[in-house]
Amino acid sequence: MLRNTVKRHLKNFSRAKTGPGAVFWSKNGSGLRIKPMSMAQVATYSTKIPPRLTAESYPSVQRLTQFKKLSPEDMTFFQSILSGSEILQATADEDLALFNEDWMRKYKGQSKLVLRPKSVEQVSQILKYCNDQKLAVVPQGGNTGLVGGSVPVFDEIVLSLTQLNKIRDFDPVSGILKCDAGVILENADSYLAEHGYIFPMDLGAKGSCHVGGIVATNAGGLRLLRYGSLHGTVLGLEVVLPNGKVLNSMNALRKDNTGYDLKQMFIGSEGTIGVVTGVSILTPPRPKAVNVSFLGVGSYEGVQKVFVQAKQELSEILSAFEFMDLKSQKLAKQHLKDVAHPLEDEYPFYVLIETSGSNKEHDDAKLEAFLEKAMDDGTVLDGVVAQDETELRNLWEWRESIPESSQAGGGVYKYDVSLPLKDLYSLVEAANERLAEKGLLGDSDATKPVISAVGYGHVGDGNLHLNVAVREYSKEVEKALEPFVYEFVSSKNGSISAEHGLGFQKKNYIGYSKNEQEVAMIKQLKNLYDPNAILNPYKYV
Amino acid sequence: MLRNTVKRHLKNFSRAKTGPGAVFWSKNGSGLRIKPMSMAQVATYSTKIPPRLTAESYPSVQRLTQFKKLSPEDMTFFQSILSGSEILQATADEDLALFNEDWMRKYKGQSKLVLRPKSVEQVSQILKYCNDQKLAVVPQGGNTGLVGGSVPVFDEIVLSLTQLNKIRDFDPVSGILKCDAGVILENADSYLAEHGYIFPMDLGAKGSCHVGGIVATNAGGLRLLRYGSLHGTVLGLEVVLPNGKVLNSMNALRKDNTGYDLKQMFIGSEGTIGVVTGVSILTPPRPKAVNVSFLGVGSYEGVQKVFVQAKQELSEILSAFEFMDLKSQKLAKQHLKDVAHPLEDEYPFYVLIETSGSNKEHDDAKLEAFLEKAMDDGTVLDGVVAQDETELRNLWEWRESIPESSQAGGGVYKYDVSLPLKDLYSLVEAANERLAEKGLLGDSDATKPVISAVGYGHVGDGNLHLNVAVREYSKEVEKALEPFVYEFVSSKNGSISAEHGLGFQKKNYIGYSKNEQEVAMIKQLKNLYDPNAILNPYKYV
Repeated sequence: MLRNTVKRHLKNFSRAKTGPGAVFWSKNGSGLRIKPMSMAQVATYSTKIPPRLTAESYPSVQRLTQFKKLSPEDMTFFQSILSGSEILQATADEDLALFNEDWMRKYKGQSKLVLRPKSVEQVSQILKYCNDQKLAVVPQGGNTGLVGGSVPVFDEIVLSLTQLNKIRDFDPVSGILKCDAGVILENADSYLAEHGYIFPMDLGAKGSCHVGGIVATNAGGLRLLRYGSLHGTVLGLEVVLPNGKVLNSMNALRKDNTGYDLKQMFIGSEGTIGVVTGVSILTPPRPKAVNVSFLGVGSYEGVQKVFVQAKQELSEILSAFEFMDLKSQKLAKQHLKDVAHPLEDEYPFYVLIETSGSNKEHDDAKLEAFLEKAMDDGTVLDGVVAQDETELRNLWEWRESIPESSQAGGGVYKYDVSLPLKDLYSLVEAANERLAEKGLLGDSDATKPVISAVGYGHVGDGNLHLNVAVREYSKEVEKALEPFVYEFVSSKNGSISAEHGLGFQKKNYIGYSKNEQEVAMIKQLKNLYDPNAILNPYKYV
Repeated sequence: MLRNTVKRHLKNFSRAKTGPGAVFWSKNGSGLRIKPMSMAQVATYSTKIPPRLTAESYPSVQRLTQFKKLSPEDMTFFQSILSGSEILQATADEDLALFNEDWMRKYKGQSKLVLRPKSVEQVSQILKYCNDQKLAVVPQGGNTGLVGGSVPVFDEIVLSLTQLNKIRDFDPVSGILKCDAGVILENADSYLAEHGYIFPMDLGAKGSCHVGGIVATNAGGLRLLRYGSLHGTVLGLEVVLPNGKVLNSMNALRKDNTGYDLKQMFIGSEGTIGVVTGVSILTPPRPKAVNVSFLGVGSYEGVQKVFVQAKQELSEILSAFEFMDLKSQKLAKQHLKDVAHPLEDEYPFYVLIETSGSNKEHDDAKLEAFLEKAMDDGTVLDGVVAQDETELRNLWEWRESIPESSQAGGGVYKYDVSLPLKDLYSLVEAANERLAEKGLLGDSDATKPVISAVGYGHVGDGNLHLNVAVREYSKEVEKALEPFVYEFVSSKNGSISAEHGLGFQKKNYIGYSKNEQEVAMIKQLKNLYDPNAILNPYKYV
């Protein structure tokens, strides 16, 4: 019976391709249920809480006296190398909040100066001067970081890469893209789309984050399962060192085995040893066929089972395998308000599977075989397959809107961890238990600080996002979660940061994921490249 | 007509799967031509030339006086931490040639001592002692390197990883393999095959080379096009530093963003800053279907065109795209003697295309569509598709036997370079012209030192192998080729070493591929990790 249902469904693919309807199918249902889908424009991020200064929230962190305070002479120098539009100064009306505050509005610095150079030479001059003068600097890309790594803590100068935003070169035979660090990820991907290529990573913040920023963060995102990490795809970098010297490997080829691969040190260095100004990256051909299905699953064990099946059946065309728990979808429903959820009934877990391939017919056949098997054995309980680009994006939206949905009630504590697959969800359960025990959790009780602790993430990479949605940031909640979360992860040999980095939030917790020798060597490299420690202080190590 | 030919051919696939015949097809042929194929066992490597000491061939390289000479006290120490079978000493009968000479018999060191520890602790004790005593050390894996990087130059102690050869752990859900550095690549791959996984790289020397050795070399090999570089697939390393301290990141997960990615420095470091003793690597599911086709092409322009078509048509299942020139196949024919070449007629260029996927039917359809198009437009002139595992290996043999075929006449000068795709073959033409001009080239003239200069390699990665087959190694030939080859590559913004590394051969030529700032930073790291410079001296930088 299912076979017929799925067959009919898949046959419908081409016929209904341009129509507005989504085809829903269900194992126990009576065949096809056509239902219109539409997606409201997602509201801009907001928070009910006026952000506090990081210096006030974390009084134990003190401004380092080794750093000079900004003087009129310094301004004279910056004005000598930068034009008016490249310098932003704090005034009575302008507190530079956009540059001082992070996306979650959890951290707030007190910088009085933002420099926005338009050339690598200017970046070099700025850093050399700051290094000589011992002025602390925070490099900043799209400022979409999630660990407070891209905003100042005290009065550090913000070095914004926003105006260094040109595509430099693209070779349509090799697929090698060369661009400035400040190019917005979505712009880079749109540019590549015109040439039949795709940026080998994707993430929710693509409309704001910079190519240089994702390299400096070693962001993982949604396509890692398919295209691998940036350590493999980035071919060359242009990096300005604290002393103003420029490390340039932008000419890099796909293969070059001459000397230590220096650029690798800067991938994931979070602006602590150099400022990435240019990126050369290998991009794959854009898949001609993309399918997305959104499935309801009865248990976390079921999610793991579906993953193994998907690896086997979908193999080389599997490009994303994301899971979400019911609580995360409840938050998303509240946030997206009138939009109907892809699945009518509720399930403990949801899985989003994306395939990308070169032959639509072959991909459909593989997806069909996989779904049949997964529904036949009862692992998948219900599901929907997108039939056109709009529906595809709508299904993704139910995964991608979780971060802002978690944030919408006031604020969010975000933990981005790697765990062995079997232990992945146990952290969410443990966090919920702990918050309940401490009397902090109240789904609909507005007197409790925590709304909900939800889990979702990239199962394919062993990467869980634990989001604790709160009505307000509070020391009590933070103390309940930290170091509890890190201890839990460490006990399972996981990583306390899978893809977000260390930043300010996790500076003190690196020991949970790295051993003494590693931490010593990390500090040794920091001292080697940035002996005055002017770059992104109070963070990382 | 072709359509029918190819269709018939592909239909034959399943029927003839276990048969011994290879199906040949040709655009102008009269349909199917069945022809038996068999492959002689490849002779063991040999050379007519007794190798000279490197110290004699390169008198300008002098033993560094900073290194201590081996003393009886040193032997007492080594005997106190190693058993008899873990120590090999030179005697009147045993000159340790296997450890002193490289695979090409181009370099020969004078080491009197080989240490073959069985534990990481022993490696640590050895290095700490050698560092304290200023005894120079050459780490050695399977000794299959092609730039003289794994053999001593003077009396360095050889630290062989041969006896550190255990698989440590494999997780069949994530595909993460953890093993000792001394595990032979083929053994690792066979082990993975039992679990349905595949080692993400492959190369001709797989029967001898070590997993640790390919990591230390950052070898590229035959599957890079599909699975990417080791910088992306290696998840963690265990490395003993010159001071005996152990950097251990073997617990690494697929994603871990806490601190600089230290292991990356050791991938491709060629044993100059640490000794890799353990490797943790992400392995992909073993493809269920593999196709190999061997094609005749009329020009190098045609090869490029076939590559672009293959990327478009075969996309996610394309796993290798190798090209060979006619001269390389002539050498292989001489070497493989009675074995019939896959294609009856001669063509200026040959291309080997491998697809790997999860669905044989889909892969066959994609390959068929691609071949039809390529033959229809005249790019591909003739071809054969393997029909079973034996034929598949035989086709590969015509690519993989080129190195020993080039070597068989006496010796070989090997250049492994990256070049922009369009310029790739021009280096082979330029080298042939130059050798002819200098009167060094004589295909059948035994009085000339050079037999032939042939080109082949991984077009998909922009990686050319130029092999100059010689009757004997001579300064005259070397001078004609170096720095000529490096200058040519540099003028095209290529790399003088795509995958073989620098070793002894290219130590002085790094400036052709790396700029001053890069070389300075490479030397800085060498000094940081190996201040006494005891590891693999006279090489790399």
